[in-house]
Amino acid sequence: MAILVIAPGMRTVSWVKHLKAIDPDLDIRIWPESGKPEEIEFALVWRHPPGELRKYPNLRCIASLGAGVDHILRDPDLPAGVPISRVVDRSMARSMTEYVVLSVLNYCRHFEAYRQDQLQRRWKPRIPRRTRDVRIGIMGLGQLGGHAAATLVRLGFQVRGWSRTGRRIEGVISYADGKQLDKFLSATDILVCLLPLTQATERILSRRTFAKLPPEAYVINAARGRHLVEEDLLEALESGHLSGACLDVFQHEPLPPEHPFWRHPKITVTPHISSLTDPKAVAPQLVENYRRARDGKPLLNLVDMQLGY
Amino acid sequence: MAILVIAPGMRTVSWVKHLKAIDPDLDIRIWPESGKPEEIEFALVWRHPPGELRKYPNLRCIASLGAGVDHILRDPDLPAGVPISRVVDRSMARSMTEYVVLSVLNYCRHFEAYRQDQLQRRWKPRIPRRTRDVRIGIMGLGQLGGHAAATLVRLGFQVRGWSRTGRRIEGVISYADGKQLDKFLSATDILVCLLPLTQATERILSRRTFAKLPPEAYVINAARGRHLVEEDLLEALESGHLSGACLDVFQHEPLPPEHPFWRHPKITVTPHISSLTDPKAVAPQLVENYRRARDGKPLLNLVDMQLGY
Repeated sequence: MAILVIAPGMRTVSWVKHLKAIDPDLDIRIWPESGKPEEIEFALVWRHPPGELRKYPNLRCIASLGAGVDHILRDPDLPAGVPISRVVDRSMARSMTEYVVLSVLNYCRHFEAYRQDQLQRRWKPRIPRRTRDVRIGIMGLGQLGGHAAATLVRLGFQVRGWSRTGRRIEGVISYADGKQLDKFLSATDILVCLLPLTQATERILSRRTFAKLPPEAYVINAARGRHLVEEDLLEALESGHLSGACLDVFQHEPLPPEHPFWRHPKITVTPHISSLTDPKAVAPQLVENYRRARDGKPLLNLVDMQLGY
Repeated sequence: MAILVIAPGMRTVSWVKHLKAIDPDLDIRIWPESGKPEEIEFALVWRHPPGELRKYPNLRCIASLGAGVDHILRDPDLPAGVPISRVVDRSMARSMTEYVVLSVLNYCRHFEAYRQDQLQRRWKPRIPRRTRDVRIGIMGLGQLGGHAAATLVRLGFQVRGWSRTGRRIEGVISYADGKQLDKFLSATDILVCLLPLTQATERILSRRTFAKLPPEAYVINAARGRHLVEEDLLEALESGHLSGACLDVFQHEPLPPEHPFWRHPKITVTPHISSLTDPKAVAPQLVENYRRARDGKPLLNLVDMQLGY
């Protein structure tokens, strides 16, 4: 029985290497060289072609190669009843936390402005935003958001978190579900989106949300492009209500050359690099799940299809 | 008896405000409006004119308004026997740590390159330097260096420290004095200078030091401009032995417009903002030291004149 990797456009060499390092006998195939469809029991997936996964009658698990599964769930033709798993990994959380810390400090310490100053040979010290005065609000307190929140607390920031369940983390002021969202937003100077992309969270970074933030708030989106209503962000920056944004994800990636975000003086663009999956770190949990699927045991890191993550 | 603030070119309003907030009866004078010289018992000093401090016959303490005292000790005409104190403050350590974390992550996560990419509308993800693979070497493990080292350890970096006494910090590999310097340098990918400026440390960031670092090492100087031999840095960048540098301090500040650092593609310039003294945070220890000086009690945060810090 075999593992099929369906990840069009992705370099798969490293994945195969690290999976084989754990078990050299694994039968790993790279789509579209799938072999006999009935031999495929386990699919490792990143942005597969819709409808493709129905072709494998003995599939026991669809495993996302990343933390998100929105790229799987947007396929309207998924095979019914096949469980979906995602990657939960500390090195990804660490990578995401670094990105958030870097974006937050870049903003508080005016590093974007100093880059401009350097180009113009201008020596102009600026008063830093002091940690103790800056309130960071994190949307999503799962594996990634929880790790980022705890780290920002240790760095001395005031940290708030908003999540579906109102998860509690030491030193973090927690807000739950829809009713407390406005309260959370009104006390947030830097809004960080680390939510999973679901029907409930799509377009959550909207005009309505921005309006509830205090004047000159800053927005960081490192989750998914579809969380953000791009024209609403441009409008809120234009009006001066928001002071800036750091964006790692976009509606369309790569961000098209003609997109206004590229040259916007208040927007920092990075090319979806906030948290890259590390094949070496993640291979063991994928092999473990493959073995569990093969042996009919309970799977790890399963997605709740109802919640969408 | 009075306090004299001698800080030419510095805005002193905030200092007076926060000192008076603690004791409204303090007699605070701003140089050159010193009044009768014999009334001055306590001098708060930042880059005073050489020779000036000898004019006050009853001076009991010279207090630096910053963590460094090199700006005081370079005066060849200091009054003999008057003790010198410096500021030791957690908020300054935190501010410095933020600067170091920001510079380190900027480098590891290629944010300078992404700024260039953004200007050219180029979508080009780059492999991050992973925390666990990056060895940071901190020169100086005092109040500032110790705080930065401990924070970088918590962020997952491999941290080494080099200090006069070989101070031990949990999770940090310690090296002491001159004999272990080469060993320390050969295991350092990112060199961070947080040393006090003394005769022993001046020009320590030299050709000889850079040569001991592994190829493509990166240098961060947030201590004093005179730690760095500027032409040696340019040479090491030119040859490709060093991959870049982030500099907050310079031989001449403000950095002159014609200086090659401004337009160097591998150098990040910031205008001496890594750790600003916060008058509000620091006023209590200055008033306390003033009272101790007045009452003839032992002073806080005294400088060892032999060591120069």
